Amino acid sequence: MNRVYNFSAGPACLPEKALQAAKKAIENFQENGIGLLEMSHRSTPVVELFNETTNNLKTLLNIPDNYHVLWLQGGASTQFSMVPMNLLPDHGSADYVDTGAWAAKAITECERVGRVNIIGSSRESVYNYIPKEISITQEATYLHITTNNTIYGTQYKRYPVMENDNTFLVADMSSDILSGPLDVSKFGLIYAGAQKNMGPAGVTLVIIRSDLARLNYRNIPNMMRYSTHVSKESMYNTPPVFAVCVVNETLKWLHSIGGLNTMKNINHNKSMMLYDEIERNTMFKSPVNEEDRSTMNVPFVFCDNKMSDNEFLKFCDGRGLKTLKGHRSVGGFRASIYNAMPESGVGALIAAMQEFEHHYS
Amino acid sequence: MNRVYNFSAGPACLPEKALQAAKKAIENFQENGIGLLEMSHRSTPVVELFNETTNNLKTLLNIPDNYHVLWLQGGASTQFSMVPMNLLPDHGSADYVDTGAWAAKAITECERVGRVNIIGSSRESVYNYIPKEISITQEATYLHITTNNTIYGTQYKRYPVMENDNTFLVADMSSDILSGPLDVSKFGLIYAGAQKNMGPAGVTLVIIRSDLARLNYRNIPNMMRYSTHVSKESMYNTPPVFAVCVVNETLKWLHSIGGLNTMKNINHNKSMMLYDEIERNTMFKSPVNEEDRSTMNVPFVFCDNKMSDNEFLKFCDGRGLKTLKGHRSVGGFRASIYNAMPESGVGALIAAMQEFEHHYS
Repeated sequence: MNRVYNFSAGPACLPEKALQAAKKAIENFQENGIGLLEMSHRSTPVVELFNETTNNLKTLLNIPDNYHVLWLQGGASTQFSMVPMNLLPDHGSADYVDTGAWAAKAITECERVGRVNIIGSSRESVYNYIPKEISITQEATYLHITTNNTIYGTQYKRYPVMENDNTFLVADMSSDILSGPLDVSKFGLIYAGAQKNMGPAGVTLVIIRSDLARLNYRNIPNMMRYSTHVSKESMYNTPPVFAVCVVNETLKWLHSIGGLNTMKNINHNKSMMLYDEIERNTMFKSPVNEEDRSTMNVPFVFCDNKMSDNEFLKFCDGRGLKTLKGHRSVGGFRASIYNAMPESGVGALIAAMQEFEHHYS
Repeated sequence: MNRVYNFSAGPACLPEKALQAAKKAIENFQENGIGLLEMSHRSTPVVELFNETTNNLKTLLNIPDNYHVLWLQGGASTQFSMVPMNLLPDHGSADYVDTGAWAAKAITECERVGRVNIIGSSRESVYNYIPKEISITQEATYLHITTNNTIYGTQYKRYPVMENDNTFLVADMSSDILSGPLDVSKFGLIYAGAQKNMGPAGVTLVIIRSDLARLNYRNIPNMMRYSTHVSKESMYNTPPVFAVCVVNETLKWLHSIGGLNTMKNINHNKSMMLYDEIERNTMFKSPVNEEDRSTMNVPFVFCDNKMSDNEFLKFCDGRGLKTLKGHRSVGGFRASIYNAMPESGVGALIAAMQEFEHHYS
């Protein structure tokens, strides 16, 4: 059998170096004679691991000093609630752009807390583009966007600019954080589940501007309050230590390849190779608006809707190309080509598409 | 150097078999050609892993059919809030027994939601006993207890009996779940962070009676609602897959040694060996009320308060006996001897105590 390539939308493939380090950490973490799964989060090596992880992220993303980095649990799904619970004043409102299923869930959770203005939506066209003609509501506390949409394969190429100093930008970057450089100073808060570009499931990154972390509008659980986690440096409760270790190893790998500019170029090249093949190949097409196509998740469908998706999926599976089935809400295929997917994986998929065309067209 | 024994209060030592399986899972999970850190939670092997883990727990604890098993994130600290948010009616009240720092945090979070009756507390004597003379409030919705108190080394040997059918028992069992058999039918809800007897940090077990999981008293985040997780079988959002795998391997190990009756006997023997030595040894004493002494966490102090704790800690460290420092709020020493601590570890500690006595007394 060929090498297996895992095109899963998340949890997804991770750098080989990070996996090797993870295995080593289970055996004996930094020569302490104890494995990382068994070590107290209060022990010096684990406290140092958290500091190192935060510093590695700060360097990679060039995070300004007036931002806190938090490693939490509960995924983006918990952030959908924490954002409005912490940041929205009583009787306040927030703007949301509805770019898919995840944005819609964020909207639902905000509606429990305050008023939501949906100032843009591509719902009517099955979310195949990013709404860019938006106008921010005068009294909105923040604007919330989902920078990359795994299911539909769309991605913001430029972020909305806040013209009003009182409104800040909040972004769910779960599926494209660390895919390239980022100007963190343009955001009030960024959050991301780790399980695409950063590490395994079970840890959630929050980057929050320090003035926002001090807001205290309502009586909420300690665990749901950003200031709790800021004051305890992500150790208010027992944190997901092992997941953070894998994140750290992934960050070290990103440093080792040259940082986020290099990563951005690699992602651009990988995705262009695949989009070019989708355009060229007579059997496939992209359902996504060209200028909004994601460098992370590449959905494609048969041009001929009488073709059976399962046939191509089986064809790929036999070549070690795994989990290419599109999300049930759009059908077809989806190749998730996150940071850790090597160019050879994209090459193997392209070769399979060409062979398939040769056989079946 | 001798073998290292890790007496950490949590995250804590895990069965060697579980660690070996965890390493293997990172490489290639069940011969799928993909490691578990990289696999989608929607994939068949991961869905099967969750079913298997739940079934292994159900068999071990003999959980009745009218209970749901959930694998969540956020630790006991999140359950402190989820319990009252989901289970306490508007203007309702709940009874709590204050047996230490964790119980006190549970009380704080309940007070945000409704009225708390503290019907027992050992606070005035630094929590060195379990208050047993309690009288349940007529209108209380539930009684909340913390079955084992890691910091103070106390443990319920018999649970309070609910005489009123309208009141149910809720228990934080984070630090003694699976230490012996349990009659789950006596509880409305049991919760436990995994990082002591079950697995690594990052996953939280909830066992909830099915009628209670349907309660819907207030507008709370989807992630904080038990029914969300029941209806999606712990897959509403991306769950902490790897941590659940390690839990499953720990459950398999418990089955392999003969189940929870065997485990209870082993724990009883290990803890009695240690308590007997503390009584016998002229240098040490237990600060804990005899009948309430925990089989999981064994605090002890010097009889002579002029002795330096660090001296004994260094003495132990040189023998590979690690993380024996007592919690800062009680001082002295604490040996956490969870399920996975072998009898040989307790034996090595006893030998060190005897040698220390020989040298210094």
